[in-house]
Amino acid sequence: MTARPTVGVLGGLGPAATVDFMARLIASTPAPSDQEHLRLLVDHNPAVPNRHGTIAGRAAGVGPALAAMARGLERAGADVLVMVCNTAHAWEDDIRAAVTVPFLSIIDATVDALDAGGPRRIGVMAADGCLEAGLYQRALAARGCEPVLWRPPEQAAFMALVYRIKAGERGAELTAAMAALADSLAVQGAEALIAACTEIPLVLTPDDAPLPVFVSTDLLVSRTLAFAGIAQGAGDGALEESERDR
Amino acid sequence: MTARPTVGVLGGLGPAATVDFMARLIASTPAPSDQEHLRLLVDHNPAVPNRHGTIAGRAAGVGPALAAMARGLERAGADVLVMVCNTAHAWEDDIRAAVTVPFLSIIDATVDALDAGGPRRIGVMAADGCLEAGLYQRALAARGCEPVLWRPPEQAAFMALVYRIKAGERGAELTAAMAALADSLAVQGAEALIAACTEIPLVLTPDDAPLPVFVSTDLLVSRTLAFAGIAQGAGDGALEESERDR
Repeated sequence: MTARPTVGVLGGLGPAATVDFMARLIASTPAPSDQEHLRLLVDHNPAVPNRHGTIAGRAAGVGPALAAMARGLERAGADVLVMVCNTAHAWEDDIRAAVTVPFLSIIDATVDALDAGGPRRIGVMAADGCLEAGLYQRALAARGCEPVLWRPPEQAAFMALVYRIKAGERGAELTAAMAALADSLAVQGAEALIAACTEIPLVLTPDDAPLPVFVSTDLLVSRTLAFAGIAQGAGDGALEESERDR
Repeated sequence: MTARPTVGVLGGLGPAATVDFMARLIASTPAPSDQEHLRLLVDHNPAVPNRHGTIAGRAAGVGPALAAMARGLERAGADVLVMVCNTAHAWEDDIRAAVTVPFLSIIDATVDALDAGGPRRIGVMAADGCLEAGLYQRALAARGCEPVLWRPPEQAAFMALVYRIKAGERGAELTAAMAALADSLAVQGAEALIAACTEIPLVLTPDDAPLPVFVSTDLLVSRTLAFAGIAQGAGDGALEESERDR
């Protein structure tokens, strides 16, 4: 076995989304035995201040907290870093400035998956801070795509769902509510959707949505495996539904 | 919020079991927001040599590998350590000798849950290395309990199931096979069972078993929360079945 990179994970933002990322990474790694999986160093730090507490990029203490986590992971042996939270990428520059190892952006991983000849009007299912920071709007514009966003009532409804998911709620009602929000972006003319918040796949599978969905969590998994030189396995696509979220 | 300990997790032994522990810990933590969850530092290191490769406690390189992980977690800021693997507790002394922070044993957490007035003949569903090291046999004997173990063909069948679970297999056939092995301990006179391998709850819920099951993963979760001074929430018991393993 050739030497593989140790992957440092900035996590806990939120907790269940981090576990979901790890489960998807493990399920997508072709590994008949434990020893063929990637080594991960996970700083699961839910104490990072709320990223939506004020305008993204300026919430007090978030940048220094993420930078400290990144430095700790590098010091502990991480060869590359990822962060399981779209909104927190508003502080990506603080992270990159804090370490010498590469940082794989979930935003880049996601928009890079958009086919050049594919849909141009992209519904962005994202949290307040992520949108305020313009993370997907800029990345989509750079690729000639147009973001389709919720109007304020739908955006507020989405945030309420995200906080319920973070509080541990799951189930058919949440899935239906999330699917309805996805529908509203289709009605507004979106041709495809980005699940641009790592809480979304905890309740919504692509089968629940009215349009093709680019799931940021899965695309970060793919980018991580590609960085490590691992050909992605059948992964969660080959698993039962109940296994998908594991 | 009072200062809570950062929990260092020796993980990756195997990968899915570590994710399962994290999911159960998160689900059992009463936390309406991210910020109320425990901080975890997880060294998810699947490269630790196979713990069943030779007689437990003497497999080449395991002790030093676990000691190095423990030291790294302490250095990174862990205030207490846990390890999501029963068999690897054969090297518990190496871990304790490597660090100054406390180590919460999954073996102790599990046998301490046995009621003094409860069942005395305890079926131990454990992997080869765990049994060869005598971890549960000694702990049960110290509490006046008698371990009930599989005969060689059932033990071999269990190991085959464990390796299939580690390779990512799930589903009804595996659950039925695991339940049949649980049945065989009941037939041998066990009055309760210990799921003494962290791969077991990935396919078997207590409802699938013919006897009360003490799930070592859950009992390590409870001990971790107790150490942190957190009153355990409804946890996975309040979740749907499909959520249990998350």
